[in-house]
Amino acid sequence: MTKQVGIIMGSQSDLPVMAEAAKFLEEIGIAFELTVVSAHRTPERLVEYARSARSRGIQVIIAGAGGAAHLPGMVASMTSLPVIGVPVKSSNSIDGWDSILSILQMPGGIPVATVALNGAKNAGILAASILGAHDQELGARLDAYKATLAETVLKSAEEIETKGWKAALRK
Amino acid sequence: MTKQVGIIMGSQSDLPVMAEAAKFLEEIGIAFELTVVSAHRTPERLVEYARSARSRGIQVIIAGAGGAAHLPGMVASMTSLPVIGVPVKSSNSIDGWDSILSILQMPGGIPVATVALNGAKNAGILAASILGAHDQELGARLDAYKATLAETVLKSAEEIETKGWKAALRK
Amino acid sequence: MTKQVGIIMGSQSDLPVMAEAAKFLEEIGIAFELTVVSAHRTPERLVEYARSARSRGIQVIIAGAGGAAHLPGMVASMTSLPVIGVPVKSSNSIDGWDSILSILQMPGGIPVATVALNGAKNAGILAASILGAHDQELGARLDAYKATLAETVLKSAEEIETKGWKAALRK
Amino acid sequence: MTKQVGIIMGSQSDLPVMAEAAKFLEEIGIAFELTVVSAHRTPERLVEYARSARSRGIQVIIAGAGGAAHLPGMVASMTSLPVIGVPVKSSNSIDGWDSILSILQMPGGIPVATVALNGAKNAGILAASILGAHDQELGARLDAYKATLAETVLKSAEEIETKGWKAALRK
Amino acid sequence: MTKQVGIIMGSQSDLPVMAEAAKFLEEIGIAFELTVVSAHRTPERLVEYARSARSRGIQVIIAGAGGAAHLPGMVASMTSLPVIGVPVKSSNSIDGWDSILSILQMPGGIPVATVALNGAKNAGILAASILGAHDQELGARLDAYKATLAETVLKSAEEIETKGWKAALRK
Amino acid sequence: MTKQVGIIMGSQSDLPVMAEAAKFLEEIGIAFELTVVSAHRTPERLVEYARSARSRGIQVIIAGAGGAAHLPGMVASMTSLPVIGVPVKSSNSIDGWDSILSILQMPGGIPVATVALNGAKNAGILAASILGAHDQELGARLDAYKATLAETVLKSAEEIETKGWKAALRK
Amino acid sequence: MTKQVGIIMGSQSDLPVMAEAAKFLEEIGIAFELTVVSAHRTPERLVEYARSARSRGIQVIIAGAGGAAHLPGMVASMTSLPVIGVPVKSSNSIDGWDSILSILQMPGGIPVATVALNGAKNAGILAASILGAHDQELGARLDAYKATLAETVLKSAEEIETKGWKAALRK
Amino acid sequence: MTKQVGIIMGSQSDLPVMAEAAKFLEEIGIAFELTVVSAHRTPERLVEYARSARSRGIQVIIAGAGGAAHLPGMVASMTSLPVIGVPVKSSNSIDGWDSILSILQMPGGIPVATVALNGAKNAGILAASILGAHDQELGARLDAYKATLAETVLKSAEEIETKGWKAALRK
Repeated sequence: MTKQVGIIMGSQSDLPVMAEAAKFLEEIGIAFELTVVSAHRTPERLVEYARSARSRGIQVIIAGAGGAAHLPGMVASMTSLPVIGVPVKSSNSIDGWDSILSILQMPGGIPVATVALNGAKNAGILAASILGAHDQELGARLDAYKATLAETVLKSAEEIETKGWKAALRK
Repeated sequence: MTKQVGIIMGSQSDLPVMAEAAKFLEEIGIAFELTVVSAHRTPERLVEYARSARSRGIQVIIAGAGGAAHLPGMVASMTSLPVIGVPVKSSNSIDGWDSILSILQMPGGIPVATVALNGAKNAGILAASILGAHDQELGARLDAYKATLAETVLKSAEEIETKGWKAALRK
Repeated sequence: MTKQVGIIMGSQSDLPVMAEAAKFLEEIGIAFELTVVSAHRTPERLVEYARSARSRGIQVIIAGAGGAAHLPGMVASMTSLPVIGVPVKSSNSIDGWDSILSILQMPGGIPVATVALNGAKNAGILAASILGAHDQELGARLDAYKATLAETVLKSAEEIETKGWKAALRK
Repeated sequence: MTKQVGIIMGSQSDLPVMAEAAKFLEEIGIAFELTVVSAHRTPERLVEYARSARSRGIQVIIAGAGGAAHLPGMVASMTSLPVIGVPVKSSNSIDGWDSILSILQMPGGIPVATVALNGAKNAGILAASILGAHDQELGARLDAYKATLAETVLKSAEEIETKGWKAALRK
Repeated sequence: MTKQVGIIMGSQSDLPVMAEAAKFLEEIGIAFELTVVSAHRTPERLVEYARSARSRGIQVIIAGAGGAAHLPGMVASMTSLPVIGVPVKSSNSIDGWDSILSILQMPGGIPVATVALNGAKNAGILAASILGAHDQELGARLDAYKATLAETVLKSAEEIETKGWKAALRK
Repeated sequence: MTKQVGIIMGSQSDLPVMAEAAKFLEEIGIAFELTVVSAHRTPERLVEYARSARSRGIQVIIAGAGGAAHLPGMVASMTSLPVIGVPVKSSNSIDGWDSILSILQMPGGIPVATVALNGAKNAGILAASILGAHDQELGARLDAYKATLAETVLKSAEEIETKGWKAALRK
Repeated sequence: MTKQVGIIMGSQSDLPVMAEAAKFLEEIGIAFELTVVSAHRTPERLVEYARSARSRGIQVIIAGAGGAAHLPGMVASMTSLPVIGVPVKSSNSIDGWDSILSILQMPGGIPVATVALNGAKNAGILAASILGAHDQELGARLDAYKATLAETVLKSAEEIETKGWKAALRK
Repeated sequence: MTKQVGIIMGSQSDLPVMAEAAKFLEEIGIAFELTVVSAHRTPERLVEYARSARSRGIQVIIAGAGGAAHLPGMVASMTSLPVIGVPVKSSNSIDGWDSILSILQMPGGIPVATVALNGAKNAGILAASILGAHDQELGARLDAYKATLAETVLKSAEEIETKGWKAALRK
């Protein structure tokens, strides 16, 4: 099965955060690849990855990085594929502000689709919705996924309303 | 021509910012619609817009709003289409932080593809790259667009290198 | 007894914070209801809740949410009842700034009465003071509550002054 | 007509901001008083104002102040009436953060219903909704006001959709 | 011995921070009083404390508080004595910004001498330097105290230089 | 007349801000000196100024600086006199945060009495209150000054209450 | 004369800021080159520039950029020369925080020597001091430059002390 | 062997952070000295250290400090050697913002080469690259070091690609 999504991260230490994107894609049934590409430590690898992605069949790239997070923006500068950026709150981060602003505030011409701090799961969902933009069947699967989110809320609402908030609080 | 992109904004006062998305889409040759939908002042219209977008042929939604900017996230909660959020620095904004955080920090399950503060042009480019994810011809047009960005840089570099930085500064 | 206050939250995980509002209302003797309504996961439920609140006898709504917290503002857009917003510092929050700004910075026309980060107890007190605005008896109960706050301070002051600050510090 | 709302501000220089509250209350037909009370320059006047408000028939207090804005919180400490705080972006303010945090972050026991930076109009609307919590007729007037907000949005949407966004932009 | 410095705090929970001021004053031999005065919970006590301080012989007031910290500024508004404000990082604080800005950003006319977040020890030293402004002997004791600070630095420098940084690191 | 207060600033460009301290001291009748001392450009002059201040009769030092504002803290490290720091919002400042934090966040042992951003007038008042800590007559003059602040507020309150807020707004 | 310093910037619009580095180097007599290299628009040019710099005789690189400023860090990843980063406050910047954090917060292994916001002059001086680290004569020229800074301060101090601060203020 | 780099810090408590610079220099084979110099507690020692550094053979100074971190800037004001500043996140720091801004935002004329929060390792690398600016052999050693960084990335990439991300995650 051709891999449609490429998940990359600046360091293996980002894997616990970025794995959430992989898990969602696996769950929804979208083939993906996942590896480490460092903008600062392996700049050549970065160029190669970004330049070859479309020809390898990749349709969306998810890139996560922390601190002065240049990976998502640099990948975006070298491909016309949509790039989703995940700001990772790394150990030396200033409360996440550095990775958020380094990814979000791209100059005119080179957008990065930024999601919430550590929001790799949402990056996976966004990648799916991009693939589903012209794929009614995938769109329907995403709608079904959203319905499960609603069900969870309704179930917890019902439990609280039936058993009372004090019981729910004790759990 | 079916409209592929829907551009909405919370208030007509956001139009000078959001028009940059429209201009880019027009330039690159993608059909779009543009209107005002307020999450807070016309919540029913919001529901209707988001729920009907896919069936009307829209493939990507660009939503811009300022302050406590709920429009992009609320639209995203009611469609499986990709939603691009543009934080607008409105007059009552606290340096743009309010609109950025209200759009970016969406909870797990409901992503918004956030671009830079007032980055509506990049929202247009991102919408095009999403449509181009499975459209080689559009991908090529985006590559061509990127080449023009490079040319502008190279031209100004050449001018500075040839005529000197003092001449360039006087311009 | 008709429920006068409706307490809602975006997720059951907000309950430990939001229960403080419930506890205060119970203590002061005001009937309330408490449930989960997610702006992003159950938008229809949100509309229904907000639209029906007044006719069900609710006079004040307390809504708590974290991250890009849209619940309080969206409820406020669909009711003329006063809505109190509690910014919850959720696990993915950027030090609480996201929920504070998403709730506080509402546009002209749709106010949300925002309290401190995780300030659900104060939301309960504010709801009581709103009900007490035209209810002298409830106003008197609130004055009595405030007197207990003063007593606690005076007692600790007395203890420190009598036994000395070193003894108080060792406690 | 008994004045139901008291509008106070820390300095006459806050009047251009705070007048928006007065204008809304006048428009919706709620009697109010408006004056200057400085927490720091006239602390005795502050005590007197807060202590006497309820007995003079006031049901809601709107207090605006800038910088280290202590007026709303200090008034709230001396009355059981609901107090709405308006953070004013004064000339010596640090982008408004000082007045927002000084008003919002009240300790447990003494809530202030905080609105957006310079959001005095919303303070007026919130005061009306508090009075309308148990007043169906006033609630209906507020619903009518909200309907006018929707109409403005719908009208600008219609104009843009009919005449095109370029025409709207040129305006 | 007449008490020259008054140390007050908004809540007994501030005592572990504020005790550092007391410890320094005890060490340097300045008589002080220490108690709890809450601006929000005991406003009358606040007025009484501030108004009577000078006549009781107090020459400097140290006031510590967290969150929307109004105590230092309100005391300063009711006395012509110098007031030192200590921003306390309370449990509900937003990284300390709220207490810092609520104390520091006082309007023209009512200064508060603000020290660092949780900087109660420095508040004690500052109080001593204020008393020492016209007291050569106390000034000399402060100079002696500063000399001990220098000695500690020189000693650790010597240790590192003699035994090496690796030995110092292992300690 | 011996000069009791020394006003220094890092650059002549700070003079428009710092002159407010001088004006207040002149008004209240306290002799002072005013000059430029740069921590970074004239470090020797800084040492000399700080070391000699007490022996020249100075009792309080007011130091203003912008950006990475080291002047107040470095002076404080070399004298036992109380040092008041004025964070100046210089042209290259990041909204004043740099000068505030560089002055406020002094380490244990070396306090600086920090006032509000650009708050040189308050620095003057604080210097006076420090001199007045043990000078009943100066204390009385400060109380009289505070009374004029109250009068201004009461006058503007009276004007608004008599002529109406609309008339006051038109002014 | 071999060019020892390379000054690059992400866009010609950064030239008014970056020219200050050039002016200083010219003044102190260090040969340099200046051009435009965009990390995002001309990534190949970036690689070429960084990889060839040392062999062309460049000893220090000064790189300025705004927003999500990746240029300095990306250059640093591809050369072992020291790279000085100048955060430029571009028009779409969030008060400069984005460019500061994108340049400063580099991961372990790839440092960028960051200077103040818009601090291009200081970048020039830092480049000179780097070249002067092993060049006593250049070090002496830098000491002479610093002496002129001191003279300017001493002159303005003398003027204020002689003619009085009021005269200086009127200028 | 003449010591080429001087590492200083404001307090021995900064040693665990600052030791990373020492470790790198040792690894790469550059002789250095390391000691404690406090700007605020030992100002004379600071002057002596900075003034004598060049004549003792030091070519680069690395200075780390926390809070209102004046050490790097004050050293820079008294030497023409390049000074690298390391903002240390001390215990009383406000998330590191204080030390970052106190070191970074130096005024025109006195640059400090600032690295990331707690980025002492990068300070060591930057010092090496400064020494290597005119030393091809050291430059080559730095290139070799960078190659090891790339190898680590490539190895972890290979492991993930071969064994799968789930295996890597379990580690």
